[in-house]
Amino acid sequence: MLEDLKQEVYEANMQLPKLGLVTFTWGNVSGIDREKGLFVIKPSGVEYDQLKPEDLVVVNLKGEVVEGSMNPSSDTPTHTYLYNHFPKIGGIVHTHSPWAVSFAAAKMDIPAMNTTHADTFFGDVPAADALTKKEIEEDYEGNTGKTIVKTFEERGLDYEAVPAALVSQHGPFAWGPTPAKAVYNSKVLEVVAEEDFHTMQLTHQSSELPQYLLDKHYYRKHGANAYYGQNNAHSKDHATRS
Amino acid sequence: MLEDLKQEVYEANMQLPKLGLVTFTWGNVSGIDREKGLFVIKPSGVEYDQLKPEDLVVVNLKGEVVEGSMNPSSDTPTHTYLYNHFPKIGGIVHTHSPWAVSFAAAKMDIPAMNTTHADTFFGDVPAADALTKKEIEEDYEGNTGKTIVKTFEERGLDYEAVPAALVSQHGPFAWGPTPAKAVYNSKVLEVVAEEDFHTMQLTHQSSELPQYLLDKHYYRKHGANAYYGQNNAHSKDHATRS
Amino acid sequence: MLEDLKQEVYEANMQLPKLGLVTFTWGNVSGIDREKGLFVIKPSGVEYDQLKPEDLVVVNLKGEVVEGSMNPSSDTPTHTYLYNHFPKIGGIVHTHSPWAVSFAAAKMDIPAMNTTHADTFFGDVPAADALTKKEIEEDYEGNTGKTIVKTFEERGLDYEAVPAALVSQHGPFAWGPTPAKAVYNSKVLEVVAEEDFHTMQLTHQSSELPQYLLDKHYYRKHGANAYYGQNNAHSKDHATRS
Amino acid sequence: MLEDLKQEVYEANMQLPKLGLVTFTWGNVSGIDREKGLFVIKPSGVEYDQLKPEDLVVVNLKGEVVEGSMNPSSDTPTHTYLYNHFPKIGGIVHTHSPWAVSFAAAKMDIPAMNTTHADTFFGDVPAADALTKKEIEEDYEGNTGKTIVKTFEERGLDYEAVPAALVSQHGPFAWGPTPAKAVYNSKVLEVVAEEDFHTMQLTHQSSELPQYLLDKHYYRKHGANAYYGQNNAHSKDHATRS
Repeated sequence: MLEDLKQEVYEANMQLPKLGLVTFTWGNVSGIDREKGLFVIKPSGVEYDQLKPEDLVVVNLKGEVVEGSMNPSSDTPTHTYLYNHFPKIGGIVHTHSPWAVSFAAAKMDIPAMNTTHADTFFGDVPAADALTKKEIEEDYEGNTGKTIVKTFEERGLDYEAVPAALVSQHGPFAWGPTPAKAVYNSKVLEVVAEEDFHTMQLTHQSSELPQYLLDKHYYRKHGANAYYGQNNAHSKDHATRS
Repeated sequence: MLEDLKQEVYEANMQLPKLGLVTFTWGNVSGIDREKGLFVIKPSGVEYDQLKPEDLVVVNLKGEVVEGSMNPSSDTPTHTYLYNHFPKIGGIVHTHSPWAVSFAAAKMDIPAMNTTHADTFFGDVPAADALTKKEIEEDYEGNTGKTIVKTFEERGLDYEAVPAALVSQHGPFAWGPTPAKAVYNSKVLEVVAEEDFHTMQLTHQSSELPQYLLDKHYYRKHGANAYYGQNNAHSKDHATRS
Repeated sequence: MLEDLKQEVYEANMQLPKLGLVTFTWGNVSGIDREKGLFVIKPSGVEYDQLKPEDLVVVNLKGEVVEGSMNPSSDTPTHTYLYNHFPKIGGIVHTHSPWAVSFAAAKMDIPAMNTTHADTFFGDVPAADALTKKEIEEDYEGNTGKTIVKTFEERGLDYEAVPAALVSQHGPFAWGPTPAKAVYNSKVLEVVAEEDFHTMQLTHQSSELPQYLLDKHYYRKHGANAYYGQNNAHSKDHATRS
Repeated sequence: MLEDLKQEVYEANMQLPKLGLVTFTWGNVSGIDREKGLFVIKPSGVEYDQLKPEDLVVVNLKGEVVEGSMNPSSDTPTHTYLYNHFPKIGGIVHTHSPWAVSFAAAKMDIPAMNTTHADTFFGDVPAADALTKKEIEEDYEGNTGKTIVKTFEERGLDYEAVPAALVSQHGPFAWGPTPAKAVYNSKVLEVVAEEDFHTMQLTHQSSELPQYLLDKHYYRKHGANAYYGQNNAHSKDHATRS
């Protein structure tokens, strides 16, 4: 069942230790088949060097296990909530990557301070509100998804343009059109968190990017007029333009 | 004598350089056979790449060498004291891991500021008082164990729920039900020390976790109602609950 | 066409991940054949572990692609501008190396605070002005080169003696007589950015080097009286002088 | 000539990149044969992965090359000065290791703040005065040795008990009874510089170790009553003492 997706999600999971994003088993990637309404996720607490594609668990959009002998990630209800409310995403990553966690613990956004950020995130990556006692006790993992979605709604953010969030006191979630792209976004988040930290120590003046630079870098890589890389319609134009 | 335990303690010692917790020979792991009242510990000053299981030294709970041609770790009296006063622990780790040492030198607890911390430590990891001149001169290594135990008693801490301490001016000790689990706790301590440092630089507002989030994360992984991983009675319940 | 230069630029590009200067595809090296007025540059968005010498693109000094089936780096207009205005350089490197980016985001020079800096950079590495809205919208990559050149002119800096610059809000560019030397300068910049950051946190007193120490270290390695290394006329003199 | 010493110094040099203490060629180790009054040192500017034992240069205590076809390290006059004024040392290391350089640039001692420090350095590692214009112009490398020796004399420090120094604005030198021990001390210096930096950011209260803890840790590993490791007369006593 969903063997190709399992392989894809397996490979995305295995990128996490390679990119230095996880310690021990502290991370998980899922990927969804939107037509079937099923997603594939890492089993809970399994070491990366022992993980096999067939260990992955298939879950439906009610959060019920449909296939698999192992228990899915304990964060499965968060993934379920995000897939239901962000209908265009194809993969989700959760890690405890240390720089992103440091910002999450401080309940601070990761601000857009440089073009590395703008290449991937079209604005600040928000720190969603910490969960209340009631939210934690009633449905911790589900409400973790809920606080993310609520933050995007309240701030009027586009989850495709800002494909990540911090959950205050906890850590980062990232997503994207595919599991591999979600992992990529997860790494970018960690890199810019580290850079922002150092920039904020260097100066107390505002280092937020102006909107026009955000526009330039984000749309250089995304959308109809993108010209970065080999597969955009406008790459050739750009190459010979100047 | 205790060949299985020697192998287990050997493997736990060899994890220390792999996890980036030691420079040169600055670390040691021991493990105890509670029935026999004997523990096995790394010999003093031996390089990790030259260490062999048969080099490990067997020591009784009076701190006397029972078997082994090499000298045990100079920290053996600390291990002895902790085994005698924390009767449920099965393994102890001492390292000079740099982030934990930085907090120890500042005589500061490693506060519970994020869920990575709460997953392993049910509250702040205490910095035990620095030893007095008299304590150092009379029985340095024994009193190093004593200041840890005294701190847990005075603060009413449960050594099973908070399986690590700093010794002020010196560095971290961690423990657990097995040598491998003690090494795991030792790594978590280093990771959260680094994260806390950065959180404390980012904000001067309190970043301490509320008790209800500590409860949630700690009991998600520990005790009768744990549901993280593959071996807990409640993992399946959780998987299908939402 | 330019096969030797392609090999040289290929090898210089492959040094970037080895030296820890790039994440994903975020960096590019070019090298120029001054007689032919053509330069060779990395194609846009290609992973380093898939890059081959024949993928490199040949571009003329108007920024037009002369040979190559792939799109050149989206930063090609910046390289073009720099080759046209810094006539003695033979190679250019752009990366998003994190310490240099942190200073660029803070719009701060990387000051000359130690001899590691003075060995390579004869003074502060300037942070060029951020681009205006107009400059970004009209010709982003070309104007990125322009702000660097303008900064060197306004401050009266010698681009051979200070072979790097930051572009504010963006990141570092470095250059040199060859592509390999440009990569070397790019690494030195990252190392001294990290050191400067920590020095600036340690003390609020000025740590700028005096001119006579800059002179000593820079001319120990550069120019007619250099005596560092094996290939300088004065190395032997120095060796037996004292 | 001095083939055994060349091999020993070669191996000590090769430890520098393994221990993460050098970038490019920025470091050198020498070792001395006190009976013959000759020392062996790395040639100037040679890459570590191309260095061979036979490349090492033999120098006498006047700083004259006695054997070798390559130029010795440009820092040879500093080594010469130190061997002449610190008569009991057998090896010297100079690196540009980044944490030590950060303190040197700030012209700050690396203070004794934890037992990792006390195990190797019996007190603060001093930052020697920066050289004056005259000292730099007349005999830069010789005067680099001179400022170190002067600092030890003025502060009444024992160069065997504190086997390292920073040269302000420049970087660290370390030494020891053998080249290998000098490299060891060089690594310890880098580790404690990093730890001290973080401790100093965590607290503004004094974190200097009391003398009695310095005494304990230093003499646990050094001198007639040392009991750390396998080769001390008192190791066995300690092992069974408690």
